[in-house]
Amino acid sequence: MSKIVPVVLCGGSGTRLWPRSRKTKPKPFLPLIGEQTMFEGTLARCGDGEQFAPPVIVTGAAHLEHVEEQSRSATGASVIVEPEAKNTAAAIALAAGRLPSDAVMLVCPSDHHIADVQAFRAAAAAAARLAADDWLVAFGITASAPETGYGYIKRGEPLESGFRVERFVEKPDLATARSFLADGGYSWNGGIFAFRAGQFLSELARHRPALAAAAHDSVDMGRQDGNRFHPDAKSFATIEPESVDYAVMEETDRAAMVPASMGWSDIGSWAALRDATDADRDGNSVRGRADLVDCAGVFVDSDGPRVSVIGLKDVAIVVDGDEVLVTTMDGAQKVGKLAGASRQ
Amino acid sequence: MSKIVPVVLCGGSGTRLWPRSRKTKPKPFLPLIGEQTMFEGTLARCGDGEQFAPPVIVTGAAHLEHVEEQSRSATGASVIVEPEAKNTAAAIALAAGRLPSDAVMLVCPSDHHIADVQAFRAAAAAAARLAADDWLVAFGITASAPETGYGYIKRGEPLESGFRVERFVEKPDLATARSFLADGGYSWNGGIFAFRAGQFLSELARHRPALAAAAHDSVDMGRQDGNRFHPDAKSFATIEPESVDYAVMEETDRAAMVPASMGWSDIGSWAALRDATDADRDGNSVRGRADLVDCAGVFVDSDGPRVSVIGLKDVAIVVDGDEVLVTTMDGAQKVGKLAGASRQ
Repeated sequence: MSKIVPVVLCGGSGTRLWPRSRKTKPKPFLPLIGEQTMFEGTLARCGDGEQFAPPVIVTGAAHLEHVEEQSRSATGASVIVEPEAKNTAAAIALAAGRLPSDAVMLVCPSDHHIADVQAFRAAAAAAARLAADDWLVAFGITASAPETGYGYIKRGEPLESGFRVERFVEKPDLATARSFLADGGYSWNGGIFAFRAGQFLSELARHRPALAAAAHDSVDMGRQDGNRFHPDAKSFATIEPESVDYAVMEETDRAAMVPASMGWSDIGSWAALRDATDADRDGNSVRGRADLVDCAGVFVDSDGPRVSVIGLKDVAIVVDGDEVLVTTMDGAQKVGKLAGASRQ
Repeated sequence: MSKIVPVVLCGGSGTRLWPRSRKTKPKPFLPLIGEQTMFEGTLARCGDGEQFAPPVIVTGAAHLEHVEEQSRSATGASVIVEPEAKNTAAAIALAAGRLPSDAVMLVCPSDHHIADVQAFRAAAAAAARLAADDWLVAFGITASAPETGYGYIKRGEPLESGFRVERFVEKPDLATARSFLADGGYSWNGGIFAFRAGQFLSELARHRPALAAAAHDSVDMGRQDGNRFHPDAKSFATIEPESVDYAVMEETDRAAMVPASMGWSDIGSWAALRDATDADRDGNSVRGRADLVDCAGVFVDSDGPRVSVIGLKDVAIVVDGDEVLVTTMDGAQKVGKLAGASRQ
């Protein structure tokens, strides 16, 4: 089988990790865990030249500088510069349209953390085998908690290297999430997909013909500039933004999944970042200078000032230039609603 | 009766309000409540020219700049510059030695907050009347909680404008403090005293003759420089440091007290400062830029950065240059033990 083509999506600008994440430097480009940024980590996971071809990165002009700076070590990388953000179905259609029909793409968000790279590569290999047989394959992340912030995948009958998808489930309420966890047949939809490029485009054309046509025209009339490709803005502007989940995965009758147990986190909050970070025996994690007394489960991330903390439990403290955030882990989901985060 | 001479003591360098209070700018010189510093507030309380003579300020060379800068509006103020810190008995002896024997001194620490200035002045008048009759008079602050951080005064038989002191009590344990509060006959020793200068010196000479002699020599051989007076360093160096409580008040048989209910606080911690500060209806107090969501009893003091807080209760957050402190109110008593506070 030929090598898998990583398609790395760099879009969006979340506010959930404000104030470290800012509009001008969003989550994928920050070294939140270890020395690598999540974008660099995504490229590194797909950096094994035996298994993977050079990556195709899809991003907007706003992030181009970060993308190029942080992808220098990814030999042969090419960049598709989206004229505007049109959600994932369109982004993937651009990449698929630029690839040979038989290429197997592995679509990877660039703002996830994956602790176990070997498990990721094994799942990628399994997904690629199914994709080569024209299955549209989602990674099914082993659910380890009754999360209400993720979509779920119910697996169906076994396939050669995975399972049919019985159904996709929207973000559930807590009781439903608990029943999914107890059932065992549900996993999280982590937004990682494998497709044969031609098969993806033909499914897209079937279920979203206008989107497929506009993406096709946009590639057709696009302009190459070194390793950058600029799709035609006018055609692209007509696209109705839609996620690949809605536009293709929930429509196709060839949806498959591969189970992936790989220490995955979308680092969707400071609480999630704390959980994904190495902690001392009291559960405290520190980046930068800090002095913790009588603390447990405290997360500190400071870009300069020393942070001294006494007597706190399960609290995140983030110092970033002119902003200081102090939040309970439970409160961390409200970070996006703060004046500082919403009025950047 | 002649006017009361305020003797304002500016010594020490506590660490309990670190990081706002630093070695180079300790608590008395910081505008912690309102626009005035506590030193300025102390001068202002004694600034009524009908009741008070110009103040005598006793301080060390380290704080002289702050003292002079912040006492400009105290007309006629004079400063005694201690060659070194020798605790309160020696400091008061210097001031007493510089005053006419019949002058009534009101000894005031400069790092206390007193909300009710009228009540303070009334207590000062009552204390001065007793001091003129050669009583050594302590303010007995109405105890409003079973504090274990203060010494207590048990009052005895009534005098013309106060009470005899039955005994002074060292900082009690919690059970004892509770029994004091229930008893009603105990008040806090706030370190505010009224003495006739000559009477103080003769009691000091009786109970601590070496200290009295050294202080006398130090004044005798001292040097005037404008409104500054520099006691002789060599004589002063021989003094064994001791508090006025030990050296005089607990020894004399002429100890008296005047009750004082005047919204007093020694602002001995960030928790005490929060309690002395105006709060919104959720009990939150903010100095500087802050954004509080789902918070109660939260105190924020920032010298620049915006502080965003979610979900916390009874926590103090202080941002001062290169230091950030986050502490529970209960933990605030441990601030002095932090690396930043102890290794300034």
